[in-house]
Amino acid sequence: MSRKSKGINAERELIHKFWSLPDWAAVRIAGSGSMKYPSSDLIAANRGRILAIECKTCKENSKYIPEEDIGQLRQFAQLFKAEPWIAVRFAANDWYFMMPEDLERTGKNFLITTDSARSKGILFEELTKEGLSSPC
Amino acid sequence: MSRKSKGINAERELIHKFWSLPDWAAVRIAGSGSMKYPSSDLIAANRGRILAIECKTCKENSKYIPEEDIGQLRQFAQLFKAEPWIAVRFAANDWYFMMPEDLERTGKNFLITTDSARSKGILFEELTKEGLSSPC
Repeated sequence: MSRKSKGINAERELIHKFWSLPDWAAVRIAGSGSMKYPSSDLIAANRGRILAIECKTCKENSKYIPEEDIGQLRQFAQLFKAEPWIAVRFAANDWYFMMPEDLERTGKNFLITTDSARSKGILFEELTKEGLSSPC
Repeated sequence: MSRKSKGINAERELIHKFWSLPDWAAVRIAGSGSMKYPSSDLIAANRGRILAIECKTCKENSKYIPEEDIGQLRQFAQLFKAEPWIAVRFAANDWYFMMPEDLERTGKNFLITTDSARSKGILFEELTKEGLSSPC
């Protein structure tokens, strides 16, 4: 399976998780990695909150994300009045959801490690629970 | 060019129109016609309004839309607190934007004609102008 296909499958997995909850909807954005406009990979909503989500999966224990990707996520989220989130999954671990301000900067990139995801990220159940205050 | 490709090109054309305006963003939703979940073809936003848009193009002078499509558009729009719109373009005419309640029902379908689009629809410039009150 190509890297792109794996990425799409991971995004679809998250889409199904949102739809499995009452009152949550989620969609994948077409061409999010190739269009010239800022975008996220997914958008999810529940009649109140809107989440713009960038998805990252990784076999290793750390993932570098170009600062441009995070800048575009923030810009896109602002236009949709959405909360910007980075969803990350290392190998067979759970998905962790991190806010841009919780990413560690290293030069022109941001770095997420399994440790930082576990210590600063939240799980899907926490992300979608009622009453979570928006981090925007 | 396949019918699907023509549809995607028409959607991309609208995406570019939104991004050409200051403060508007728009994205195409992946698999909107094939996923099992309700969806629209596009979502657009401008830091305040969110539009869920179903796109229809047609060579003839009339277009039937299954009521299920409109039901799904409404359902999806509610979850995103978005305004539901149907964008329709007949042959080389302009895009007209219609609200679900302005469509004419004929049995299990809704019908849009060039005449009804012109009389009840609004143009892109009207749709995106500041101060348009939400029809929700």
